[in-house]
Amino acid sequence: MRIGIVGLGLIGGSLAIDLRRQGHYLLGVSRRPETCQQAVSQGMVDQAEPEMALMQSAEVIFLCTPLGALENAVDQLLPHLSPSTILTDVGSVKAPVVAQLAPRWPNFVGGHPMAGKAESGLEAAEAGLFVNRAYVLTPTETTPPAALKTVAGLAESLQSQLYYCDPVAHDRAVAWISHLPVMLSASLIAACLAEPEPAVAELAENLASSGFRDTSRVGGGNPELGVMMARYNQTALLQSLLAYRKQLDDMIQTIQQQDWSGLEQKLAQTQQGRTRFKICQ
Amino acid sequence: MRIGIVGLGLIGGSLAIDLRRQGHYLLGVSRRPETCQQAVSQGMVDQAEPEMALMQSAEVIFLCTPLGALENAVDQLLPHLSPSTILTDVGSVKAPVVAQLAPRWPNFVGGHPMAGKAESGLEAAEAGLFVNRAYVLTPTETTPPAALKTVAGLAESLQSQLYYCDPVAHDRAVAWISHLPVMLSASLIAACLAEPEPAVAELAENLASSGFRDTSRVGGGNPELGVMMARYNQTALLQSLLAYRKQLDDMIQTIQQQDWSGLEQKLAQTQQGRTRFKICQ
Repeated sequence: MRIGIVGLGLIGGSLAIDLRRQGHYLLGVSRRPETCQQAVSQGMVDQAEPEMALMQSAEVIFLCTPLGALENAVDQLLPHLSPSTILTDVGSVKAPVVAQLAPRWPNFVGGHPMAGKAESGLEAAEAGLFVNRAYVLTPTETTPPAALKTVAGLAESLQSQLYYCDPVAHDRAVAWISHLPVMLSASLIAACLAEPEPAVAELAENLASSGFRDTSRVGGGNPELGVMMARYNQTALLQSLLAYRKQLDDMIQTIQQQDWSGLEQKLAQTQQGRTRFKICQ
Repeated sequence: MRIGIVGLGLIGGSLAIDLRRQGHYLLGVSRRPETCQQAVSQGMVDQAEPEMALMQSAEVIFLCTPLGALENAVDQLLPHLSPSTILTDVGSVKAPVVAQLAPRWPNFVGGHPMAGKAESGLEAAEAGLFVNRAYVLTPTETTPPAALKTVAGLAESLQSQLYYCDPVAHDRAVAWISHLPVMLSASLIAACLAEPEPAVAELAENLASSGFRDTSRVGGGNPELGVMMARYNQTALLQSLLAYRKQLDDMIQTIQQQDWSGLEQKLAQTQQGRTRFKICQ
């Protein structure tokens, strides 16, 4: 199959590596000519160019730009395509992307391969990035079954675990498990940094151990990524944040009232409930 | 030196192992006769018994019971001691412990070796648990310098990093970096578990990855330990929780107002600020 990748970063590059090894013919587009050169010379793609015209022979195209660059990329891409071309994206938010793309390109399938790394860019791309990781597809009533089947087949060929859901359910789920943790973890760091007494602040900086390190990790991540989450998943994230604040207020009240058996019950529930999450088992 | 350990659990057992290997004579007390037997047969201590009378020949005694059992243990212990005996504890909260013990036993030094593990009990005890970990001592105006020097020497012999501060500063610092993270992490789990739509909840359970796993880890820990933190460090923990809620409210407002440059600035500050914490460097 002739497969196009628009955006040669961590996800686009990693997709290219695995798909080309399977024998597909890979076409890459990146704005930067050096990135195109690098992708070709490292054998990630067969051809790469900054011009979208390269995509006209692709049968399936993965849109792998950052969310903020997606609309612009699509504007430039669509004039070059024949109607049979299947488009799919890899964005971490689905409802706004699907709402924007599906009307403009009926042969579109929303997707989200959930494989992150701290590093980004083509240099961070690697073989097997998607093995045993979730790959969510978000078809709607208007998604052509043949396009869905093709994209699902490619995702399966990466040895990903496929999930199907509607775009809004996806966004609410990732708000809970990905976007909300970033915001509450960042708020933890911000609160610690606001400690008014220098001696206490310094002691905290020295004494923090694995509990603080783990709880603060995602709050200390890439700021642009955090802004993208909030910007494109604002509704679901705010729902989660407000529900979270309610739980936090309950917790504060329980401690203020010295209701220790209530607190123990709460913590026993979270200890038990956490094991429902596959990654925590 | 003849060293006593009251409470043969993770911390007490690990202290015994390291101190005995240095050539000290170790005396252990545990309420359960089987634990005493186990500690002796595994060579952790030279002698162990359920009776506090065993402690009468100890020169330094480490109080290693859970915080909730400390007062009772001290009541039973004090009648057996000569005034030269040095008492020190290992509790994770210092102000209430120091306030309670210092008036009753002048030769007392508050301490907190910060070496935790998910497992507890004597079975979890291990050699070298305190190597390169913080060991905080919280002397006050009334702490005898000789007693402080003796306990500091023993802590140093474990290859711990010694810190000195007053009991209240300790409690405020650990509220930030240890107790607050537990409560906000537990609130995250509680909020996710309260998702009303089963399809979204199930998806979240399946899609959660390392970000959720790390942010929720300490909130899924031992409920009794969480209650102890709140119970004995209530004042400092509530201060931290309220300051945290303020940061969270700021974050929510920033997102509600779609102030994306403000959010990016906030997240850049937390990304940068996190590196001030030694463990995150």
